[in-house]
Amino acid sequence: MATVDESDPDTPEAYAALVDRSEKLTNVQMASMVLGWDQRVMMPEGGTPARAGQLSTLSSLGHELLVDDDVGAWLERLEATDLTDDQAAVVRELRRRYDRAVDVPADLVEELTAHQAQTQQVWQEAKAEDDFDHFAPALEELIDLHRERAAAIDPTENPYRVLYEDGLPYLPLETVERIFTELREHLVPLIERIQTEGRELPSPFEGHTYDEATQMALSQEAVDLLGYEREHGRLDTAPHPFMSGNQFDARITTRFREDDPIDALTATIHEFGHATYQLGLPKDEYGTPLGASLSSGVHESQSRFWENHVGRTKPFWEFFLPTLKEHFPHLEDVTVEEAYAAVNRIYPDNLIRVEADELTYHLHIILRCEIDRAFVEGDLDVADIPQVWNDKMDEYLGIRPETDTDGCLQDTHWSYGFAGFQGYTVGSVLAAQLDAAMREDLADVDARIREGEFDPLREWMTEHVHRHGQRYPTEELIEVATGEPLTAEYFLEYVDEKFTDLYDL
Amino acid sequence: MATVDESDPDTPEAYAALVDRSEKLTNVQMASMVLGWDQRVMMPEGGTPARAGQLSTLSSLGHELLVDDDVGAWLERLEATDLTDDQAAVVRELRRRYDRAVDVPADLVEELTAHQAQTQQVWQEAKAEDDFDHFAPALEELIDLHRERAAAIDPTENPYRVLYEDGLPYLPLETVERIFTELREHLVPLIERIQTEGRELPSPFEGHTYDEATQMALSQEAVDLLGYEREHGRLDTAPHPFMSGNQFDARITTRFREDDPIDALTATIHEFGHATYQLGLPKDEYGTPLGASLSSGVHESQSRFWENHVGRTKPFWEFFLPTLKEHFPHLEDVTVEEAYAAVNRIYPDNLIRVEADELTYHLHIILRCEIDRAFVEGDLDVADIPQVWNDKMDEYLGIRPETDTDGCLQDTHWSYGFAGFQGYTVGSVLAAQLDAAMREDLADVDARIREGEFDPLREWMTEHVHRHGQRYPTEELIEVATGEPLTAEYFLEYVDEKFTDLYDL
Repeated sequence: MATVDESDPDTPEAYAALVDRSEKLTNVQMASMVLGWDQRVMMPEGGTPARAGQLSTLSSLGHELLVDDDVGAWLERLEATDLTDDQAAVVRELRRRYDRAVDVPADLVEELTAHQAQTQQVWQEAKAEDDFDHFAPALEELIDLHRERAAAIDPTENPYRVLYEDGLPYLPLETVERIFTELREHLVPLIERIQTEGRELPSPFEGHTYDEATQMALSQEAVDLLGYEREHGRLDTAPHPFMSGNQFDARITTRFREDDPIDALTATIHEFGHATYQLGLPKDEYGTPLGASLSSGVHESQSRFWENHVGRTKPFWEFFLPTLKEHFPHLEDVTVEEAYAAVNRIYPDNLIRVEADELTYHLHIILRCEIDRAFVEGDLDVADIPQVWNDKMDEYLGIRPETDTDGCLQDTHWSYGFAGFQGYTVGSVLAAQLDAAMREDLADVDARIREGEFDPLREWMTEHVHRHGQRYPTEELIEVATGEPLTAEYFLEYVDEKFTDLYDL
Repeated sequence: MATVDESDPDTPEAYAALVDRSEKLTNVQMASMVLGWDQRVMMPEGGTPARAGQLSTLSSLGHELLVDDDVGAWLERLEATDLTDDQAAVVRELRRRYDRAVDVPADLVEELTAHQAQTQQVWQEAKAEDDFDHFAPALEELIDLHRERAAAIDPTENPYRVLYEDGLPYLPLETVERIFTELREHLVPLIERIQTEGRELPSPFEGHTYDEATQMALSQEAVDLLGYEREHGRLDTAPHPFMSGNQFDARITTRFREDDPIDALTATIHEFGHATYQLGLPKDEYGTPLGASLSSGVHESQSRFWENHVGRTKPFWEFFLPTLKEHFPHLEDVTVEEAYAAVNRIYPDNLIRVEADELTYHLHIILRCEIDRAFVEGDLDVADIPQVWNDKMDEYLGIRPETDTDGCLQDTHWSYGFAGFQGYTVGSVLAAQLDAAMREDLADVDARIREGEFDPLREWMTEHVHRHGQRYPTEELIEVATGEPLTAEYFLEYVDEKFTDLYDL
């Protein structure tokens, strides 16, 4: 599964060796990913100590494979060689990974991984018992380890920026922060207008209970209709929905609310979107950067595209409402307009990010990024996180969580690491930009959605995004795929048009 | 999770380093085991290429961790040191693994693992299509690789003996072959007597269909009643039942026949028995040989004990029949005697090993061992395997498979490797010996089974077998646990008594 034509006498041996190492590294990472999926979906609780050891060992073995002196020598030799564009991209990406790992001691890597596994357990207990004090020491130790890691990567750089680049390489923090400011300045007044001037929306799904088995059958049917390749995926339940895998095996999970069938359905479609990205990566490049997804923001653009620009459109509900009614016959009188309104309703009094609507969601993200930054930069004490969280919720959304379970303990992310939240909002912004580019390119997108013909949409994304893997840095990929740099323009146009219409503003 | 008292100034550093390496090795092996479980139980079919790469990389990394020069140096140093008995056992076991790996090239290990993954796929296709020719080339290549491995381990030794010691170290092949001869000489006439002189047994379960969901619920309840620690295990379905895991997470699988609820139930109890062994290993020795199971024969003694010496006894059916009737109310008139007879029926016309009864089973094993040996030693061509298989079935059991699916393609084992079948029969022999020792030691075993008090039985096995891990070589463990060397005596007494009574001989 190599990129290189081995028969070409000019092809340096070093390149073949680098690709072989990249494949081994990928295999170790993908093995860890299977162990992680299993831990969250299948593993009996008592398996934790052994699983933590397994993940820690794989992490340290992966680290050793990467920071090997040979890798450094191959990279230096290849950087002084004429390479094809694809080869140069492979070298660039492995150089980036190497440089981010070579000065990080193996012990630290192992300690971090072991600590993450333990912290995940502690976080689950703390969340279940609404006990932030139980979580705080583990969190503090974890961020110390991450700061140590950031200092090892680049002792002269702000640790927050170093960690940010884990998830969003090649997309400057300044660009993202500028876009976040635009969003906040635009969304806060829009949400206020909706609250004060918006019409009352119908709530056709409220007041019923929706059993889990039927909701699961609905989710299964939804992803089948959207074109989920079942020979390369599966849908299960987990407390926190996620996607895990590669181009051969991309699995998704969802979870259910008894009082609301839309919550699970949109989570399922969201994770399906993530899976389309993995499954659109070139299979013959499995193991090289050309067969790997690019960054958290690009990944999230795929999930947001399917969740919002397909799953929350009126044409989709014209197509899908009959299926929903088959599973829940008591909804037989619900109209498309009502369903469309219900799935797009804005509810600023919601405390939970993963249940947030398309507008307030981004204020949840901005809040987290601010806390993240202050904590990593040492300006915020761990003990003050609940207070600061609650104050910011008050300031941005006018609500205050009554428990930390509904506040700063709600997300699993902080039991793994820090500074990864920007990708969610970047994803929404990019999804709107990609949707606009697709509609320039592809006739009758709405009609296709209305007919349930989703393949052309997925194929467009594969052609313009997935198939490139890590061929281009994020900024360049966005230009290649959409013809312009990342901009908030399309997202803001899209939400203005949609919510002005929906709420009769 | 180390064995050694680190505060003891006499404890050599080399020992701590060796234990640390052993833990890493265990973690890599256990990670592979999770990937294997997932592949057989959860993975979508299209995941195979990536999974094969992952398993191959982990296998080669594990190999490198083991054959490292440091390990050789630590072992030499420790072998010249005064050690506690436990430390000496750890050193002995790692020496054995080291010696069996150090001369095997990493490339060969990787090739073997990748080939096993592919062969498994090919075997499934060949079995589904009754097409041995499809399987033969992969099988031939696999045995060539295994022969190459045997030659690397010990070029002066018969390759069959070398491979045999993978599964049954410290139990001489001569001992096993002597016991096999005793069994064959005793079982063939016993089976003939049953066929010619035995009474007609009742068949209370025949003529009904048993839906899969209810059978699964029955299996789940059975293992709960037997004392399966659910926080450390789970029961799923797979085409071929198996157990996978360690002392923190030991999972089992079963599968269902529509016309027979006993088949799945006994398979489930069998795998539960394997799980009790893993779960009885000391948790604080996870990662060292003292926390690992000993050999295939000892493992199988635990599954056979629960399957036969508990699950096929009259007291068990006095206890369990009401539960069976709750799940399948149409069986309400079945008596304990009838159920006991049905689960112990001998059917020499059965072609399938995993469905075989307690007596004919061992002739299935002996047949495989003979083919194994001839093939590995080069006396049997791959193309002749179906013919030889069928001839031997005819000779030993008086039946001839009509398809290879029901013949030499029935077992998955040959898609992994060779020479591992002895353990099954050794397990039955040892189970009877352990059962006799337990009954010497523990009052009222039958009464406990009748009351559903299984904990004392499991605890006896943990005390006498599980908790030792690899502390003793197999022969020594058998003496420690039962007071005498491995002998066919108890097994033959047990089957004579049981079947003479059951069939009114």
